[in-house]
Amino acid sequence: MYTLSVSSPPRVLVAPYPQRRQLVFPDDVWAELTSEFDVLEVDGADPRFDELLPGAFAIVGQPDLPAARVGAARELRAICNVEGNFLPNVDYAACFGRGVHVLGCGPAYAQPVAEYALGLALDLARGISAGDRAFRAGAERYAEAGNVGATLLQRADVGLLGLGNVGRALLPLLRPFGVRVRGYDPWLPPRALAALDVEPTGLDELLSASTFVFVLATATTENAHLLDADKLALLPDRARLVLAGRAAVVDFAALYEQVAAGRLRAAVDVWPTEPVPPDDVARTLDGLVLSAHRAGALDTAFRAIGEMVLDDLRQIAAGLPPARMQQATRELAPRYRNKPVIR
Amino acid sequence: MYTLSVSSPPRVLVAPYPQRRQLVFPDDVWAELTSEFDVLEVDGADPRFDELLPGAFAIVGQPDLPAARVGAARELRAICNVEGNFLPNVDYAACFGRGVHVLGCGPAYAQPVAEYALGLALDLARGISAGDRAFRAGAERYAEAGNVGATLLQRADVGLLGLGNVGRALLPLLRPFGVRVRGYDPWLPPRALAALDVEPTGLDELLSASTFVFVLATATTENAHLLDADKLALLPDRARLVLAGRAAVVDFAALYEQVAAGRLRAAVDVWPTEPVPPDDVARTLDGLVLSAHRAGALDTAFRAIGEMVLDDLRQIAAGLPPARMQQATRELAPRYRNKPVIR
Amino acid sequence: MYTLSVSSPPRVLVAPYPQRRQLVFPDDVWAELTSEFDVLEVDGADPRFDELLPGAFAIVGQPDLPAARVGAARELRAICNVEGNFLPNVDYAACFGRGVHVLGCGPAYAQPVAEYALGLALDLARGISAGDRAFRAGAERYAEAGNVGATLLQRADVGLLGLGNVGRALLPLLRPFGVRVRGYDPWLPPRALAALDVEPTGLDELLSASTFVFVLATATTENAHLLDADKLALLPDRARLVLAGRAAVVDFAALYEQVAAGRLRAAVDVWPTEPVPPDDVARTLDGLVLSAHRAGALDTAFRAIGEMVLDDLRQIAAGLPPARMQQATRELAPRYRNKPVIR
Amino acid sequence: MYTLSVSSPPRVLVAPYPQRRQLVFPDDVWAELTSEFDVLEVDGADPRFDELLPGAFAIVGQPDLPAARVGAARELRAICNVEGNFLPNVDYAACFGRGVHVLGCGPAYAQPVAEYALGLALDLARGISAGDRAFRAGAERYAEAGNVGATLLQRADVGLLGLGNVGRALLPLLRPFGVRVRGYDPWLPPRALAALDVEPTGLDELLSASTFVFVLATATTENAHLLDADKLALLPDRARLVLAGRAAVVDFAALYEQVAAGRLRAAVDVWPTEPVPPDDVARTLDGLVLSAHRAGALDTAFRAIGEMVLDDLRQIAAGLPPARMQQATRELAPRYRNKPVIR
Repeated sequence: MYTLSVSSPPRVLVAPYPQRRQLVFPDDVWAELTSEFDVLEVDGADPRFDELLPGAFAIVGQPDLPAARVGAARELRAICNVEGNFLPNVDYAACFGRGVHVLGCGPAYAQPVAEYALGLALDLARGISAGDRAFRAGAERYAEAGNVGATLLQRADVGLLGLGNVGRALLPLLRPFGVRVRGYDPWLPPRALAALDVEPTGLDELLSASTFVFVLATATTENAHLLDADKLALLPDRARLVLAGRAAVVDFAALYEQVAAGRLRAAVDVWPTEPVPPDDVARTLDGLVLSAHRAGALDTAFRAIGEMVLDDLRQIAAGLPPARMQQATRELAPRYRNKPVIR
Repeated sequence: MYTLSVSSPPRVLVAPYPQRRQLVFPDDVWAELTSEFDVLEVDGADPRFDELLPGAFAIVGQPDLPAARVGAARELRAICNVEGNFLPNVDYAACFGRGVHVLGCGPAYAQPVAEYALGLALDLARGISAGDRAFRAGAERYAEAGNVGATLLQRADVGLLGLGNVGRALLPLLRPFGVRVRGYDPWLPPRALAALDVEPTGLDELLSASTFVFVLATATTENAHLLDADKLALLPDRARLVLAGRAAVVDFAALYEQVAAGRLRAAVDVWPTEPVPPDDVARTLDGLVLSAHRAGALDTAFRAIGEMVLDDLRQIAAGLPPARMQQATRELAPRYRNKPVIR
Repeated sequence: MYTLSVSSPPRVLVAPYPQRRQLVFPDDVWAELTSEFDVLEVDGADPRFDELLPGAFAIVGQPDLPAARVGAARELRAICNVEGNFLPNVDYAACFGRGVHVLGCGPAYAQPVAEYALGLALDLARGISAGDRAFRAGAERYAEAGNVGATLLQRADVGLLGLGNVGRALLPLLRPFGVRVRGYDPWLPPRALAALDVEPTGLDELLSASTFVFVLATATTENAHLLDADKLALLPDRARLVLAGRAAVVDFAALYEQVAAGRLRAAVDVWPTEPVPPDDVARTLDGLVLSAHRAGALDTAFRAIGEMVLDDLRQIAAGLPPARMQQATRELAPRYRNKPVIR
Repeated sequence: MYTLSVSSPPRVLVAPYPQRRQLVFPDDVWAELTSEFDVLEVDGADPRFDELLPGAFAIVGQPDLPAARVGAARELRAICNVEGNFLPNVDYAACFGRGVHVLGCGPAYAQPVAEYALGLALDLARGISAGDRAFRAGAERYAEAGNVGATLLQRADVGLLGLGNVGRALLPLLRPFGVRVRGYDPWLPPRALAALDVEPTGLDELLSASTFVFVLATATTENAHLLDADKLALLPDRARLVLAGRAAVVDFAALYEQVAAGRLRAAVDVWPTEPVPPDDVARTLDGLVLSAHRAGALDTAFRAIGEMVLDDLRQIAAGLPPARMQQATRELAPRYRNKPVIR
């Protein structure tokens, strides 16, 4: 399939914290990795890390990598983040200047999050979890009496905030519903959205026009509380909001207020503080579907991360570009403001 | 658009019970219907019904229509059921012998039920309502800790029991998940399933192979408790069952037992007795998603029924065949055993 | 799979003329048919036909069946046309009054014709056969010089005249091109088109708006020369016309004139007279793609016909409705004016 | 929409040769470009080019850019190839070391080539251009007599050689045919193909199994005559080959031989020498569809190139990564061996 470009197996330092190594590399994937590469598990805080760094072909994980370490890693070709977020603990400019691939595992989460987001939207459309709750309380209402306010997704006006990996994985799941899809993504030119058959739309117009809104944006240096009280007020009455990107994008106090007032319904998978405080009002709001940061964290996603890493290390060792992980860009890598998921 | 085949507006008797007339015919649809036809609202039990019958072009609703009434209805061209089930209170043979179209509104429910069924499947796949319940109880678990047993729908083995209106509406919603779809429908030849890109499969094999099973079958003279304890035992451990057809098809005691044992999870929208008794064990089973016969009963579905009736009455009055409602067949009309939804 | 409703094998009279029996029933299909039914090959003109008729369960083919013959066929349950057109040589009213299924094999041609129609449209869009012709004449032009007037199908305005079997098979092939689809079908209510995600459009508006028009209509008592000079003049300059329904729908003289003038391009598979006269001007028009009634007549289509017949005879013998062939309707059966393809 | 990161308009040198500037930048696109950037049209051979280079923000076109020029271009952020091929006249390593984006316009050709490739495949499947040719010669055969050897694309075994831009644009067009898609691309790991729902397959196995093969590979340092006589011999009898990548990949003498023998049919859009010599045997082979490098060179594609350039220059000027053009990679840029299309 490929030939290694160096005579001995390339050295790979594995430092996946806070991800558990066994989660990302199930036994069979690990066996392949260790048979093809000289794999060493060593935490970034371990003194041996700096000893091993000069001969390292790749780093799996995202330990602190300031300029000095990047400079010392003379053979380094790739850094493979296996947690999901590009963190500010790496000197990206130094990496790019050296031609080191900085790779993220975001694509592995796209399908799980997209399926979950669709499930949440259908729950909000039809009141699935609310109906289950009523039923368990002996208060269910049958047929049309139980469907007051319920709506179809078919031919709905859908807005996507963010058209990265998740948005792109969600699009094909939405298409058979015949929805009209508007999109907003300040990091993409309008024609990039049009090429995805998404109508590029200004934020205000998107919010005003959409009865289902999927908030899939990552947290950046620019978008804290992008959805504040005023923006949320633009949404049509009884709009449904699926929050599956990052909590920082939304003003939660404003969201709770509008949900409590019955104006909006929302499914929330990401929270300003996790774990959510025991007395958080969200736990009592009927108009919410509550989810504990579970959209992406599936066995299959973790395994996919390990496979991606293996695939792309093979590519690079064979003199080919990485083909499965997401490449960090010089322009954006410093602008993410996500935090690792607590575990 | 069309020309009436009779000189005066054709007479239409509207007897929609147990459906409410206003639900099926919102004002605008009703205005169209009454402007184009000589519409009379008259219950089948009203003595005027038999007076009006001889001049009736169509009956909307499904009042008792024994042979004598069918014989008396000398101008009758169509009977439009607006409730959803072909009931045994009509002499179908007499209708077919006379060339009367017997039409059902099943297609109006297909999209709502299909969307709901997909929502239930995604809930079962990921534990959406169970997660919401835990969260409200302060017992949520985050990220992978909350996802034990969760699974993707992507590339899953899906089995469809019944490939009528709902199954066909569900197929396009399932396709982007890349699932393998097996189907079982004893009223269809295998190649009819293959033409839908569904693998025709024997019941036992389908159950053994499918991790998601959608039970979409109507109740018939032949399929009571088709899914009994033995059949349910064929399902793989942790299979997900969406019950959105008719309750009579399933042995509920057996289902509860296997759900209680943690072997299966199920979403149930139809029940042997409705309303479900207050002390029914289902209300306490963690592995169930409980739903009160809400899959089809949406405003939009009711409106669609009225529109279908209007469209097909126009077709028939114009000398064209009905094009939107489902035609009852000589062979199957007597074999349905569904009951109207309680309201 | 099913149980026969009669004690001895039901008798099937096979009179497929002008279709050849071996074409429709390849050996393996024939073996199944003859093992399950009491099959007799007998032409409608053969005196034995009338002898055998009273005991016949089904007739395969469409021999003359006036009222007297239908009356004599006391056990008749189905007539299976295997050629493709409902001809006026059957007393349809007598059949329907008796509850005899009159079935057509149109669906077997839908996929071949739809694929061919798309191929013709792409040829017209890009000048594939014209380019091949120029190349063989040593007059090819390369790259953009050869693409003057060429256009994409992507996002084009597409009009479908006729939304029967072929139109419905063509729709999924067109969808990934992101086209806007308008449709016109006087036998269907507008909402039936909308349910197919086709915009119901008046004929004039459709012609004015569409750069690709697929003429898929069958010939009826009402649509001779529906596309006359005036209608063709509504098409935008350089519109592409795919004629894959019936020739009678189009005024060919008018079509030739506008093609010769360079205003339209057309792909023609059906002709007013077949074979086309040797000196027909069509043979010299650069703007035409010429095809000899080849859209449907594929081995696989013929085989599919035999399979459909077998499937539906099994259905009916088992007390089930036919599920694969097209049911003739009381209203439309007398209104078709198609002629068999010459062979 | 964005803010320029520099105070004065960034300087853009436009040197599109051999592409014509007006083709790539229609008036409206050019007006936008020149209003937002300090645009100078200057050929790479023009002495002013080197004078202007030090202040250039971007170069549109691919003039010779050896290390000295790259070094002199101190403000350079992007090189936008508008012809379609990464040529060896650029010191890619120097560019990457400097963080200069090297961008290609390949994606603009993907849809035109994919539509054309499908059109060619349908032509080969059904003999559209051959049928037109016979018709013009008065030798057409009707219905099944004209369809000997014709086949459906539906459910066919399709092989894709190369899964770059074109292959990915072709996949959605193929899906509604229900084909089985095998793929071979030595620059991608098998799971990258699987993620596209393509079965990764070795070259020999792919050739042996596929009745339709699309050769979409670019020319590289490794794949000259990849499809030689032996490989072509692996194809099933009567396989159809669409050659829409680069001619260098195929041994044309071997291809002609197998086409002449009636074993294969092929549609050829790219040729070892262009223009093709007047006496090339290809011009006489019945089993070929001949096309003069016309798959991509559409007005709409050229316009799309200009739009991509504009979009990505805006992105980069706004401190964002390019989002529409294809990024050259350090690994592959030196390995392409394509030549510009003659014009």
